[in-house]
Amino acid sequence: MKILIKQVLLQDKIVDILIKDNLISEISTTINDSEAEVFDARDLAVIPPFYNMHTHSSMTLLRGYCEDKPLFEWLNNIWKKEAELSSQDIYNGTRLAILEMIKSGTVFFADMYWHHQSIIKACQEMGIRANIGICFMNNLGKETIKENFDFAKQFSKTNNDLVNISIAPHAIYTCDAQLYKECYEFAKENNLYFHTHLSETQKEVEDSIKQYGMPPVEYLNSIGVLDNKTILAHCVHLTEKEAEIISQNKSIIAHNPCSNMKLASGVFDSRQAMKHNCIITLGTDGNSSNNSLSMIEEMKFASLLAKVHYQDSEAGNSDEVFKWATINGAKAMGINAGEICEGKEADLLFIKLNDEKMQPNYNTISNIIYSSDTKCIDSVMCNGKFLMKHGYVEGEEEIIEIAKTYK
Amino acid sequence: MKILIKQVLLQDKIVDILIKDNLISEISTTINDSEAEVFDARDLAVIPPFYNMHTHSSMTLLRGYCEDKPLFEWLNNIWKKEAELSSQDIYNGTRLAILEMIKSGTVFFADMYWHHQSIIKACQEMGIRANIGICFMNNLGKETIKENFDFAKQFSKTNNDLVNISIAPHAIYTCDAQLYKECYEFAKENNLYFHTHLSETQKEVEDSIKQYGMPPVEYLNSIGVLDNKTILAHCVHLTEKEAEIISQNKSIIAHNPCSNMKLASGVFDSRQAMKHNCIITLGTDGNSSNNSLSMIEEMKFASLLAKVHYQDSEAGNSDEVFKWATINGAKAMGINAGEICEGKEADLLFIKLNDEKMQPNYNTISNIIYSSDTKCIDSVMCNGKFLMKHGYVEGEEEIIEIAKTYK
Repeated sequence: MKILIKQVLLQDKIVDILIKDNLISEISTTINDSEAEVFDARDLAVIPPFYNMHTHSSMTLLRGYCEDKPLFEWLNNIWKKEAELSSQDIYNGTRLAILEMIKSGTVFFADMYWHHQSIIKACQEMGIRANIGICFMNNLGKETIKENFDFAKQFSKTNNDLVNISIAPHAIYTCDAQLYKECYEFAKENNLYFHTHLSETQKEVEDSIKQYGMPPVEYLNSIGVLDNKTILAHCVHLTEKEAEIISQNKSIIAHNPCSNMKLASGVFDSRQAMKHNCIITLGTDGNSSNNSLSMIEEMKFASLLAKVHYQDSEAGNSDEVFKWATINGAKAMGINAGEICEGKEADLLFIKLNDEKMQPNYNTISNIIYSSDTKCIDSVMCNGKFLMKHGYVEGEEEIIEIAKTYK
Repeated sequence: MKILIKQVLLQDKIVDILIKDNLISEISTTINDSEAEVFDARDLAVIPPFYNMHTHSSMTLLRGYCEDKPLFEWLNNIWKKEAELSSQDIYNGTRLAILEMIKSGTVFFADMYWHHQSIIKACQEMGIRANIGICFMNNLGKETIKENFDFAKQFSKTNNDLVNISIAPHAIYTCDAQLYKECYEFAKENNLYFHTHLSETQKEVEDSIKQYGMPPVEYLNSIGVLDNKTILAHCVHLTEKEAEIISQNKSIIAHNPCSNMKLASGVFDSRQAMKHNCIITLGTDGNSSNNSLSMIEEMKFASLLAKVHYQDSEAGNSDEVFKWATINGAKAMGINAGEICEGKEADLLFIKLNDEKMQPNYNTISNIIYSSDTKCIDSVMCNGKFLMKHGYVEGEEEIIEIAKTYK
């Protein structure tokens, strides 16, 4: 299976790109290959697509359900509504989320939720890369916890290229140290990623200090569950020492600026994290606290929030933020993509250079981050296959029709 | 000329809307009118479009030209580039900006720039409402200042329905008290709006206190140039007393959250302004400091910035922010629109209810602000005429082709 992309703008050059199976096999000024299916990319730019490092995809069903409320009123409303959702609902919600992600140029997401089997099914059907966090909390009860481990053990053997799982203890206020350690040991034994919410709110930090005598990152480090396969979602309120701990363990920070702003959780200290060479990646969080899965929008929020927070227009540099949204996530997840070079897996995002939002084009990346939105996205390729071609995703009408029945 | 809009979602009801000439003549469950041109609006919602209360439209030509730089390096680069722009460039840049505004649902903008004749020409040709600020600065020299007043006197008599002008002294650090007063008196005599940058940066406030012994709003009040036809762009650093002065004078605040974040100017204190019942409206500022003219995006930034700033998820309420972007601007400018009722001028924005970003639809306004982007916009009507119909704006290809020559 070969696809020949003709005349695409890659950085500042017009090139042809040959895709063989799932790999970028050649990039050159002119490539001819009579066996390849040709994709005419005149008037398109190609960039790496996005790797959304923290979300709860199926919560898309709760978009707009409870707005502008205080955190605990919001949580109570959401929890009540969540309790009503069946496996079929979760499947429908995940498909809606994946459709939104593809349409906004995302080819990978790190998820955390219940009903993981429905989520996995939706991902496999739609061809997107995903790491599905199997969620753990003490109040699930021993039986469900055991079932989750059994499922994870089973699934981790299937060795699916694109859809994998992680062990995801929810947060330090819902999981005790024993459960965290049990989850971590299981993850190690089965070579799985480990994904948790951490240091999202000031209250969580205060409670951690009260209960454990130390802030959240120090606490998780003290029980030995941090390493380079640990995704830490949020990390809003880190001390200098905690940033250092994260860096030493090579753990992965998933920064969610929109959610942190919308829920008034606070501002992630990106400069501190960069100073300590932490791995910073970007996530959208779930659609009930954002309410969008667009990584283009998330990049602009990440950049502008840093600028206003540090009172410095040089902060939140667009090239840096672009890395958070692309290669940093791919690298952290061990995906051989996130940049467009020969030998990499073919994850590609095609941008319409003819859209008014891309004019004039002094700086393609800055135009994408600060000006463009999903209207500028033409096509999305994941691992050598088109998930969207010229704006169309296979089966989108059915997904929308089903989604419309929720409200 | 009659247009019959069939089966559109207005708030929570499906209705028909009859447009006669430029007015909304009837809203009812079913309307039949064999003479009217029918617009099938099944699967569309209708909302008021946006009134962009502060921008420099032609600076769209400088989008992405100088990014992530310190304020003064940015300003120097921009000024140098601006000096090279001809009247024809300004005309081309304004057309590009208007295209972007129409595509993002905006039917009115308050502008401030040089080469006003080119800007006015572009507005008149493209059918958008606008108030074009004729810009004044001491360093223009007496001759140019006189020419500007002469032009303003002349144009203010032409009485164009949609395109008007205002007198726009640039800022307190570029215009002295005498020029401000001269501008204000001229505006009063000719019944024109008055538009100025005010209290944008901390430095401006400090300099004002040093030079005039008081902060910027107090200073302009002391020289008697504030009233209900005064648009004050930015108002980032107001004291309690200054918010009160703005309220007493019924002056119009144009809040530009993206620009204030991107240039690291600071955070407008919307709660203080609301406490004093100030008139708050929304603007995008120019495309060299945003870099987008989308009011949908601006609303999300306004809301989320307020939430994180006040550490309160109830701040930046979506219904309130929606008013800033719509009816508050229309009302402030004396435009009989900004809400959809019989007797109002027909300014209408049609949103695609079938887009994945609008699913599920618990709350249309919240979906538009927090989830949608310009991809969800189907059609835009201004004063009874379609500026965009099903995604297409007359002449858009030519505008883009010309824009592409800049870089």
